Amino acid sequence: MELLKQRILKDGTEIGTEVVKVDSFLNHQLDIGLFMALGKEIHRRFGHLGINKILTIEASGIGIAAITAIYFDLVPVVFAKKAQPNTMTEEFYGAPVKSFTKGTVSIARVSKNYLNANDKVLIIDDFLAHGEAAAGLANLVEQAGGTVCGIAAIIEKEFQGGSKKLRDAGYLVDSLAVITKVEDGKIYFKD
Amino acid sequence: MELLKQRILKDGTEIGTEVVKVDSFLNHQLDIGLFMALGKEIHRRFGHLGINKILTIEASGIGIAAITAIYFDLVPVVFAKKAQPNTMTEEFYGAPVKSFTKGTVSIARVSKNYLNANDKVLIIDDFLAHGEAAAGLANLVEQAGGTVCGIAAIIEKEFQGGSKKLRDAGYLVDSLAVITKVEDGKIYFKD
Repeated sequence: MELLKQRILKDGTEIGTEVVKVDSFLNHQLDIGLFMALGKEIHRRFGHLGINKILTIEASGIGIAAITAIYFDLVPVVFAKKAQPNTMTEEFYGAPVKSFTKGTVSIARVSKNYLNANDKVLIIDDFLAHGEAAAGLANLVEQAGGTVCGIAAIIEKEFQGGSKKLRDAGYLVDSLAVITKVEDGKIYFKD
Repeated sequence: MELLKQRILKDGTEIGTEVVKVDSFLNHQLDIGLFMALGKEIHRRFGHLGINKILTIEASGIGIAAITAIYFDLVPVVFAKKAQPNTMTEEFYGAPVKSFTKGTVSIARVSKNYLNANDKVLIIDDFLAHGEAAAGLANLVEQAGGTVCGIAAIIEKEFQGGSKKLRDAGYLVDSLAVITKVEDGKIYFKD
């Protein structure tokens, strides 16, 4: 998505070889006009799949998921909560999610009230890197007997292998901007 | 706001004397159609104040803040992050926020890049109880030299005193549903 690539090139900061910081528009300050364009594009790519629920994980997926739901006829949005492993209870589906940047493991949790066997779910996250969060969310949907119709990421760092791993597991994955490498402070996109 | 009161009465669950659980539509599963009605109502109440930024706190304020920004001509939304007290750095404004339900103190943090002296800020949160989160967010705006134009809550638990405390401190506070008491499993609203 050209608009997004240009925005990343213009406003992405503190670029290392592994990290691209986009907190001026995507995950700390949110550009809602941009989010509307992103939501519309996600609908263009996934709108034919009969999706009836959007699932994301706190915190930075929530804004984009909420705006995107407008373009999916206002389907419910559910966000998984991140908890310490010891706070699991029977009323939740839980899946471990490793954070490579933080070096921690948390449990993504969704109440059993909000995922079920009739759900045709679109998973949305802001970043797709190693694919841990998306795989954990897919696990939650499947525990409930629901169907993962697709995984949409705003920015994918393809070189960290998450999309390949998820596709190998049979998921439909599509990202609005795919970064193939970051070298000498320059970002390279797919296409 | 009658629509919201009716929804709380219909879908609010696990009601004690202090807690009303609304996670089926407000803070775990999100009803985006309802959020659009709430955002429009917040604009009706605060739209004349020249607001140019919306500030909230992760995680459950983000969805309603993002949707509400649509009705405020797409002003930027900033969400404060909750961090442990020891992770403060120079590049952030930080304010302590006590959680009465969890019995913990966290630091609400916003990058200095995203709050400044020209900001006319609307603070939005899902719940207003003791007022700790809203007071912390107001503190962040003021550290940056900006102006707090108003504080909008979706559900206020008036009996926990937060709105009185914030009004006594000079803030404009307005909540879409004001609960005056919860007794024998029944919710009483103002008006």
